[in-house]
Amino acid sequence: MKEFFKVTDLKSVLEYSSDFPRVKTEDILLDESFGRILAVSVNADVDLPDFARSTMDGYAVRASATFGTSEANPAYLTIKGTVPMGTSPAFSIGSDEVARISTGGMLPEGADSVVMIEHTEVIDRTTIEVYRSVAPGQHILEKGEDIPKGDVLVPKGKHLRPQETGLLAAFGKEAVTVYKKPVVGIISTGDEIVSVHETPTPGQIRDINIYTLSGMLRKAGAVPVSFGIVRDDFDDLFKTCTTAMAQSDMVLISGGSSVGTRDFTIDVLSALPESDILVHGISISPGKPTILAKSRNLAIWGLPGQVTSTMVVFEIVVKPFINHIGGLSLKNERNFKFSARLSRNIASAQGRMEYIRVRLNHKNGILWADPILGKSGLINTMVNADGLIEIGTNTEGLDKGVTVAVIPL
Amino acid sequence: MKEFFKVTDLKSVLEYSSDFPRVKTEDILLDESFGRILAVSVNADVDLPDFARSTMDGYAVRASATFGTSEANPAYLTIKGTVPMGTSPAFSIGSDEVARISTGGMLPEGADSVVMIEHTEVIDRTTIEVYRSVAPGQHILEKGEDIPKGDVLVPKGKHLRPQETGLLAAFGKEAVTVYKKPVVGIISTGDEIVSVHETPTPGQIRDINIYTLSGMLRKAGAVPVSFGIVRDDFDDLFKTCTTAMAQSDMVLISGGSSVGTRDFTIDVLSALPESDILVHGISISPGKPTILAKSRNLAIWGLPGQVTSTMVVFEIVVKPFINHIGGLSLKNERNFKFSARLSRNIASAQGRMEYIRVRLNHKNGILWADPILGKSGLINTMVNADGLIEIGTNTEGLDKGVTVAVIPL
Repeated sequence: MKEFFKVTDLKSVLEYSSDFPRVKTEDILLDESFGRILAVSVNADVDLPDFARSTMDGYAVRASATFGTSEANPAYLTIKGTVPMGTSPAFSIGSDEVARISTGGMLPEGADSVVMIEHTEVIDRTTIEVYRSVAPGQHILEKGEDIPKGDVLVPKGKHLRPQETGLLAAFGKEAVTVYKKPVVGIISTGDEIVSVHETPTPGQIRDINIYTLSGMLRKAGAVPVSFGIVRDDFDDLFKTCTTAMAQSDMVLISGGSSVGTRDFTIDVLSALPESDILVHGISISPGKPTILAKSRNLAIWGLPGQVTSTMVVFEIVVKPFINHIGGLSLKNERNFKFSARLSRNIASAQGRMEYIRVRLNHKNGILWADPILGKSGLINTMVNADGLIEIGTNTEGLDKGVTVAVIPL
Repeated sequence: MKEFFKVTDLKSVLEYSSDFPRVKTEDILLDESFGRILAVSVNADVDLPDFARSTMDGYAVRASATFGTSEANPAYLTIKGTVPMGTSPAFSIGSDEVARISTGGMLPEGADSVVMIEHTEVIDRTTIEVYRSVAPGQHILEKGEDIPKGDVLVPKGKHLRPQETGLLAAFGKEAVTVYKKPVVGIISTGDEIVSVHETPTPGQIRDINIYTLSGMLRKAGAVPVSFGIVRDDFDDLFKTCTTAMAQSDMVLISGGSSVGTRDFTIDVLSALPESDILVHGISISPGKPTILAKSRNLAIWGLPGQVTSTMVVFEIVVKPFINHIGGLSLKNERNFKFSARLSRNIASAQGRMEYIRVRLNHKNGILWADPILGKSGLINTMVNADGLIEIGTNTEGLDKGVTVAVIPL
């Protein structure tokens, strides 16, 4: 029987991520930048807005002219003109004057606030009554009030949501420097695996992992590249691995589950140039027989064969490495697990992190996490799952009713 | 002064979504289907797995041969052979026989379970000791145990996650029928708006909404198409609107915020062929001045000009329409808001739904939602926001410490 390998705890495995370099950067059009990771911080080179703007329809006014006014005691002010949209008003206003202004219009010189149209009455062509006092700065955005010149607009390492691309657009950043999407090669192994295009004969199954891994990689912002299915043969796997490494920023070997395949994988990983087997087994369940090797600057993973184990290992272990090499700065990234209450007791073995698939259900206004039972090889358990919950290394289990953090799947 | 329009409540607005037809379907490769919406339910045409498989490394056995065994009282069984991976074993086993088997191997005839290698000892080339009894079905997946023939694999209207694409691969579905991605035209309006490529002169600002809306559309599975910036002119807007409608499944008019622009928008929408103004004002804040028109079978939206209002209206009002026309079945879709505790009191006006931007912070193991204060025209409030919380129509406000559901942004 083979020697038992010494497993590494999850935290130590994740710390290896900083051993791997980040991918290169590229300049792309802002229009194509949604979802990408900014590689160079962008600063505000002007104030936003660059002029004081109205946030209401009404009259630009000097606030002091409205002080003390009320319905019983209105102020009578003279209409100096109308602020045209999109240009600088050609006039200024004095202490008892106003100018018609629309939302977004530029305040004329002399005005420091806007009185809403609802709080005024037109008396004649040149005069309005104002019933309500406004404070200086009211119903306007001051120059630089949104973003002052010099502020960091978006920091390096931040993933660009719609609002960040909008902010960059406001400053005319037509192009941005982002990290390239990490290219991740996937090699499927195992004598029992056939492609989706083939009809399996008895004893064979189709390659599921190439699809689940490709989808998870895309979701994580990477580009999956399949290098096909390799039989249990050292030379073939070594050759395919070398090809994949030359074209990828990371390689995943989606393991056939037989002892033979696992043996080939570790042998091949050990034989790669400047190879270092960093991890041979992780104290998590499912996913224990995971291998991480470093060859030159590249991470190469030997993933467990079972579809559910592979998905859990990807989500919990591999994804943080993709985030790292892809340039994501966790400091600038904001991820929140949502919480739910556990619907039943779960026992767990100590000495390892355990990940339990759960299905979420709203009942009486509470979000419940129902553990999904069933053997770990069943893909239907992943299809029924909405997320994973974690049971810590030194925990014997979780009690019904406790609040758990849910990692969405 | 203009007549006040009668606002529609949010629920009634959302009910209009079913007035609009779903987009057409298309056949695509499974490999490209991640994130798409299935248009035709797919059933299991065979059992998965299609043969009984081992889930452990060990020995295939007839369970009854192990009954009553223990370390003190092992069973001595004869090794009949080794199950090759990926083919049907050429032998069957009798009541006192076993076969070496790897995880994923096909059970030979006569076997109904697998005894783990850890619970055995090799005595000689043909004999093993078994220390532990197994039950029939233990450490194996029975034929059809994952998905029995005839089951629905993925229902129509379901959005395809990595696990659903994996499941479809297991059944050899190389191509799937999905809904096309809805094409959504965006027209920017307003005399004060210039494109990201231009340098604004005083009084002008760059078009932010085209970027925020494009990003939100992509996130919602749609294809944004920009039809440029139109000045405040009836004929130009009418013409551009007609062009956009001919090429899109829905049109968004991203409003300039001036009274003039708003007037043009409603006039143009009223003049479109077979036009019906379904909604002119919604009782939500921000976002009240939103317009929804139907022209022939198309939804055309007049969105408020301010960037924050537009984003909120998109998320709360427009997205459900995109989901509908894009084929998403809410019945099959599983969306969960996460909950947080409110960090301070918020007052709210009655008579409308109110959406408050919040920033989430973990403190003492609790996720707190901090309301983001600041004028609604400030894009920095959206950049700082992690989500929105909703305050109901008949609520005067929310108290510090209550649990709120967070809509992620």
